[in-house]
Amino acid sequence: MSHKYVYLFSEGNGDMKALLGGKGANLAEMTNLNLPVPQGFTVTTEACTKYYDDGEDISEDIQREIMEYIDKLEQMTNKKFGDAENPLLVSVRSGARASMPGMMDTILNLGLNDTVVESMAQKSGNPRWAYDCYRRFIQMYSDVVTEVGKSYFEELIDEMKHKNNVSEDTELTADNLKELAQQFKDEYKSKIGEDFPVDPKVQLMGAIRAVFRSWNNPRAISYRRMYDIPGDWGTAVNVQEMVFGNLGDTSGTGVAFTRNPATGEKKLFGEYLLNAQGEDVVAGIRTPIDIEQLRTVMPQVYDEFVKICDTLEKHYRDMQDMEFTIEDSKLFMLQTRNGKRTAAAALKIACDLVDEGAISDKEAVAMIDAKSLDALLHPQFDPDALQAAIPIGNGLAASPGAATGRAVFTADTAKKWADNGEQVILVRLETSPEDIEGMAAAKGILTARGGMTSHAAVVARGMGTCCVAGCSAIKMDEKNKQFELGGKTYSEGDWISLDGSTGNIYGETLPTIDAVIGGEFGRIMDWADKYRKMGIRTNADTPHDASVAKGFGAEGIGLTRTEHMFFDAGRIAAIREMICSDTTEQREKALAKIEPMQQADFEGIYEAMEGLPVTIRYLDPPLHEFLPTEEHDIEALATAHGKTLNEIKAIITSLHEFNPMMGHRGCRLAITYPEIAAMQTRAIIKAAINVQKAHPEWENFVPELMIPLIGEVKEFVFLKNIVVETADKLISDAGSNLKYMVGTMIEIPRACITADDIAMEAEFFSFGTNDLTQMAYGFSRDDAGKFLDDYYEKQIFESDPFARIDQVGVGKLMEMAVNLGRQGRTNLKLGICGEHGGDPSSVEFCYRIGLDYVSCSPFRVPIARLAAAQAAISESDEKVIHG
Amino acid sequence: MSHKYVYLFSEGNGDMKALLGGKGANLAEMTNLNLPVPQGFTVTTEACTKYYDDGEDISEDIQREIMEYIDKLEQMTNKKFGDAENPLLVSVRSGARASMPGMMDTILNLGLNDTVVESMAQKSGNPRWAYDCYRRFIQMYSDVVTEVGKSYFEELIDEMKHKNNVSEDTELTADNLKELAQQFKDEYKSKIGEDFPVDPKVQLMGAIRAVFRSWNNPRAISYRRMYDIPGDWGTAVNVQEMVFGNLGDTSGTGVAFTRNPATGEKKLFGEYLLNAQGEDVVAGIRTPIDIEQLRTVMPQVYDEFVKICDTLEKHYRDMQDMEFTIEDSKLFMLQTRNGKRTAAAALKIACDLVDEGAISDKEAVAMIDAKSLDALLHPQFDPDALQAAIPIGNGLAASPGAATGRAVFTADTAKKWADNGEQVILVRLETSPEDIEGMAAAKGILTARGGMTSHAAVVARGMGTCCVAGCSAIKMDEKNKQFELGGKTYSEGDWISLDGSTGNIYGETLPTIDAVIGGEFGRIMDWADKYRKMGIRTNADTPHDASVAKGFGAEGIGLTRTEHMFFDAGRIAAIREMICSDTTEQREKALAKIEPMQQADFEGIYEAMEGLPVTIRYLDPPLHEFLPTEEHDIEALATAHGKTLNEIKAIITSLHEFNPMMGHRGCRLAITYPEIAAMQTRAIIKAAINVQKAHPEWENFVPELMIPLIGEVKEFVFLKNIVVETADKLISDAGSNLKYMVGTMIEIPRACITADDIAMEAEFFSFGTNDLTQMAYGFSRDDAGKFLDDYYEKQIFESDPFARIDQVGVGKLMEMAVNLGRQGRTNLKLGICGEHGGDPSSVEFCYRIGLDYVSCSPFRVPIARLAAAQAAISESDEKVIHG
Repeated sequence: MSHKYVYLFSEGNGDMKALLGGKGANLAEMTNLNLPVPQGFTVTTEACTKYYDDGEDISEDIQREIMEYIDKLEQMTNKKFGDAENPLLVSVRSGARASMPGMMDTILNLGLNDTVVESMAQKSGNPRWAYDCYRRFIQMYSDVVTEVGKSYFEELIDEMKHKNNVSEDTELTADNLKELAQQFKDEYKSKIGEDFPVDPKVQLMGAIRAVFRSWNNPRAISYRRMYDIPGDWGTAVNVQEMVFGNLGDTSGTGVAFTRNPATGEKKLFGEYLLNAQGEDVVAGIRTPIDIEQLRTVMPQVYDEFVKICDTLEKHYRDMQDMEFTIEDSKLFMLQTRNGKRTAAAALKIACDLVDEGAISDKEAVAMIDAKSLDALLHPQFDPDALQAAIPIGNGLAASPGAATGRAVFTADTAKKWADNGEQVILVRLETSPEDIEGMAAAKGILTARGGMTSHAAVVARGMGTCCVAGCSAIKMDEKNKQFELGGKTYSEGDWISLDGSTGNIYGETLPTIDAVIGGEFGRIMDWADKYRKMGIRTNADTPHDASVAKGFGAEGIGLTRTEHMFFDAGRIAAIREMICSDTTEQREKALAKIEPMQQADFEGIYEAMEGLPVTIRYLDPPLHEFLPTEEHDIEALATAHGKTLNEIKAIITSLHEFNPMMGHRGCRLAITYPEIAAMQTRAIIKAAINVQKAHPEWENFVPELMIPLIGEVKEFVFLKNIVVETADKLISDAGSNLKYMVGTMIEIPRACITADDIAMEAEFFSFGTNDLTQMAYGFSRDDAGKFLDDYYEKQIFESDPFARIDQVGVGKLMEMAVNLGRQGRTNLKLGICGEHGGDPSSVEFCYRIGLDYVSCSPFRVPIARLAAAQAAISESDEKVIHG
Repeated sequence: MSHKYVYLFSEGNGDMKALLGGKGANLAEMTNLNLPVPQGFTVTTEACTKYYDDGEDISEDIQREIMEYIDKLEQMTNKKFGDAENPLLVSVRSGARASMPGMMDTILNLGLNDTVVESMAQKSGNPRWAYDCYRRFIQMYSDVVTEVGKSYFEELIDEMKHKNNVSEDTELTADNLKELAQQFKDEYKSKIGEDFPVDPKVQLMGAIRAVFRSWNNPRAISYRRMYDIPGDWGTAVNVQEMVFGNLGDTSGTGVAFTRNPATGEKKLFGEYLLNAQGEDVVAGIRTPIDIEQLRTVMPQVYDEFVKICDTLEKHYRDMQDMEFTIEDSKLFMLQTRNGKRTAAAALKIACDLVDEGAISDKEAVAMIDAKSLDALLHPQFDPDALQAAIPIGNGLAASPGAATGRAVFTADTAKKWADNGEQVILVRLETSPEDIEGMAAAKGILTARGGMTSHAAVVARGMGTCCVAGCSAIKMDEKNKQFELGGKTYSEGDWISLDGSTGNIYGETLPTIDAVIGGEFGRIMDWADKYRKMGIRTNADTPHDASVAKGFGAEGIGLTRTEHMFFDAGRIAAIREMICSDTTEQREKALAKIEPMQQADFEGIYEAMEGLPVTIRYLDPPLHEFLPTEEHDIEALATAHGKTLNEIKAIITSLHEFNPMMGHRGCRLAITYPEIAAMQTRAIIKAAINVQKAHPEWENFVPELMIPLIGEVKEFVFLKNIVVETADKLISDAGSNLKYMVGTMIEIPRACITADDIAMEAEFFSFGTNDLTQMAYGFSRDDAGKFLDDYYEKQIFESDPFARIDQVGVGKLMEMAVNLGRQGRTNLKLGICGEHGGDPSSVEFCYRIGLDYVSCSPFRVPIARLAAAQAAISESDEKVIHG
């Protein structure tokens, strides 16, 4: 038997997401549950990957198979493709394994042509409906299949409305729509050079090809990158008998969630439009109606829908996001899926489901998107400031959080300004999928149009970005990059603030305060800790950061960067004196000034961590980073050090590097100037002796001394000798019994390759995956920005290797280091302190290769806790399945 | 039985170099051959490594063992340590596994003290001799053991000569010398704070300790780095009964070679001094006498010596370098070793030995130091220019070759200037081991004092550096950095030229011509090719370089860098136009101008290689390298391109990179601008089609297209698709049957790790070990200069990883790439085109890991041929030994 590329809905089930895509699998599952689903079939994701393997071509075998299923569908529906008397019309919709809302393309009403529409108009007695369907079909087909673009069609509609003196699409008559359909076809012909296809089979194959192609459109690629979806998954295509929400006022279409996706409240939440089709509700062109009103308008339909919602939620054991259409008072389900939700809603829903007895606490932990917690962990507006502030307007509280930034009016500007380090708020009439990158770059999103399920709202919640949607009081002037609200005009660059939890908009900056973990968040974290097996530490350079992280559950510090303390105004002078020294003696004199300050810093950090392990890294950046660049600062430096301007300039020039990333930094500094390592050791150890004396109860207090940028074991041995000699003398002079460890960052490829040798000397490894990624790929993060966009566009990279560990390359180096390292020292302690430590997929990877802990920024600690728990759960589940 | 750390000479043999050092093993071997060798014992290299393992301490066990051997030596010699009546005096000399002439320390006449010397003076009736020995001993001991330094002692000698109105050391009387010995002891006490040791056993242990310590003195470390000698080998110490060359005019000391070390001529070659001791001959303080004169002065001794020379050369089957002492007309051998020689001498000696039936051609190939050939491959003075030039003076032709450079007067200056890219000639009164780095940095060495076996001459020959020694006409003024010769004064920075083959010195620059391979060189190369199994290619960017390399035996081109052609004045304008383009169309227009020029270049290179394979690399450097930096050039560029100055400056700014080494370069350029790759493919393929048409007889002509800086297989696939599509169309349009290959550089760590994936797509790999070394270590070559000296000094690095492949780290990545690569494609072609391709030890490594060829600069091709042959011979020898 040849390979099967097409499945009837009745042939599939909900577990077949990889093959049928999410939408196809759930349509099959709903069919199996005997819910009212218009029938159809799914062309598999394998057909899509074959399409690409065959050089973007649908093989004849697959085309034949599709046509066989059209035959089956004709038999099931008793309708016929292209038959004027009883035409089969279908929708063609994409559906990938992972939900990618709005990212790919949809075509409705396929099967129409001049003959069929005319007959349909007459037989239905509803010519307006027939021609509305027809013009929509031509418009969508032209846009999606032949990429003619849609703006000209919209202009034609506007002209038609203008000519007939009406303002709404719904006011256009059947004749108007018929005329529009003709204009659309003419436009198609003039652009494409051939007639609009009349054969439904030709239309169908064109539409399926277009959906396959849409898998690789730029916004789909960009979305996949954002959500870590592999490019080789492909999309399935669902071909489904049409049902019509635009038959008149007993018809309609809508979307709904079984629970509130913003708050998690257990209450049906949704919107619908009467006499509408397809994307009208989501597109935000007309303002949709609250689902509650359906109870009054069509009570029977409403009751049936509520029952279905209940069935689906129980069945899937999760909150559902559904699409439905009412055709002449009859309800049809077009889609169900686990609903996207805010982080707060996710926590509440998970806890509620546990309390309802629907799921276990382990399942609750597993179901939360760890990345989404980010939204809860970032600052909120200071309530006092909030109370004093007067909103300039109010919209829908579409996605919670607090955002302050400068107004920008295009996605491009948002991205550019954000790339330059600006905080921006993206202000739009309404957003569209093309805006996706600008939305990701913005601190907050404000729209004038659209409801709680509008594109802006859905996407912002998914991203954890604050969003206020549908503020109809805004007078937008996108062209001149300004808007009016509350009687004032705001231009590009003006500061505004958004409160995504209340929908309030402020014409000013507002101060923020830190988040705390409590309530449902706390419950989920407690459950996570129950299942988690890997330690979570934090990267913190100050007592304040250390405290915040400890509050978030950090079990130690994985990285304290000592150099951040050097930039302090009170210290930079001593640092510069050290750099400008001509002799070791001068350098030691300058270092002696810094030592007590460093010691005090470390004491503060140890105190904040209350006896938990603290890893301190020795000086890392190249020395030129500490020198002034402005002429007058250079002059001041010269005066302070009794040197001539030229002498100071000569020092600055001598420290210039061609490739600072690959220059005189890390352990290389201390190899040239061992007195720096000696000073830092004294500060670390003296602080530890003091703190241990003050807190004898902190029995396991062991500072971990970390040497950066080791590439060769002899570098490590050279510095370890200095460290150990200095430390042991201080400890013995103080009559202390302090224990400490000496280890290294693993961030140079050669260190991974020679990790067995290094581990014989180092007591712990901490992966510095930022540098390791740079060195393994041979590009620096600062410079790669120039070409990485080309890499995404050309699908050479699917995700940012600085955000998510490149498991194939960098990850293989890490595994090598872990395996060799444990050969060199069986009880080697292994951690990671690169930024990847807070990325869930990277945390899972770290768990899989056997690290003892991950360390991340304080605000990412809860994310890492959850991700580590999920990694352990997923592993134990796999063991249950496979062993 | 406890471990044995000491061997009598009679207990060892010539194969025990690793344990006894070269000197010790050969003293043992000579003892076994019944040659006249003063007896003694060797403290092993293992004792030295144990000394370092024990924290620079000689264990009591070893001290006891040494004392046991002193007892044995006392019995053998019938003398006693410290016995005034019949004192045993010894020399203590270092001797490592590899010969390191002058690098470590020697102490003579150990065992003397006030009592012994007085008795010796009386009993011998030669008090001058006794006190000469004594003052020498105190001087050497103070310098070597306690590092008091020798300059003050020399001042004391000068004062004594002045006071007594004499000019030569030999004119000082016994009383003068006795007084000096006392002054030396006083000086010792004032510096060290205790009396000069009188107990010979204390003296001995101090001396042995000093020799061990000398293994790690800076000049020894530097020498080891230059000659790839591992730091963990350690040195042995030879303790030998003294014989005295300073007993009077029937005594003397000398050094000799069995053949001429400069030319290879089969004729005894050497020098001696009567009434002298130890280093007097080598140090160049008195001018030594040609060994031929010994035939007249002491015919019996001469005959005996000639016989011994013959025995030793036959025994060792190689030219010998010997030290001898004549004590009261009796000959003693103090050392023999395979003599250092110039490359030309090495070739002649090897060929002569084959012709004499002493060795096989295979042994001849194995015995040449491949690195040394470099000296023969570099340009010589143009004979016409040489004939026209008038020498300003003449010295000894101490080391052949031609050198033109600017005069400098200290080793430090030589190094500094050379680091800045200057060609320098080091001009010195005489050189000393401290000068080693400056000598290595200089193009040529000129000394006013010293003979053919002086330090300058020996070291320069070893390095293959041109040297003219002992030009006594020079009036040196080192303090004012100038010298007078031929009536003119030459100051620091003045240009001079040296002819190391004639000894002529010129006060000007002289033009040079290329070397050719012929005579003995050609014979050795032919033999090498007979045993060689690995291919040798060259890196050549021009038809001229390609021809030179082919003349040297290159079997193809491993790397043609296309960008060097871009800098040509006629092309840079078009390149800049390309870089300043705003659109793809503009860029293509500019590229179209470059295409015919590139095509012509490639045709020339193909023609020069006459059908051998040619590997062409696509554009590699970041684009900003092609833009002007001077204001007026920028203005000119703006005018030429009809842009404003600010627009051009903005382009330059936008191309600025933080770490250009890790920036937008290599394949990344062509991914952003595929039109560059398309243009280069057209030029490569069109040139190849033309050349193939013109030369149908070149049947195996296959251009190899090489994409640089691949880190991820998808980069390669993206560009390969463009290359193949472009190439195939041109070939089919031309009706040609041209074959070509598409492969990649392997120079990014990630490429090594994912080599299996890459090899499924790439037909060949060429290791770019320069970049691979940079990325694997995480330091750039341009910046590492700042700290690598610290690394050598602190013994973290023993050799320059950019000169010699780091086999432990970078080499492991290469092995990984080879193994994974062959998994991905069994017939994958593997080569190397980094600069390491011309380094013998790296060539051997490449052979060992299974590369098909190495590619190096044209002048290194013969070196690579020889090194590859030696690698194959050494492997087959190992197979014979190990089965």
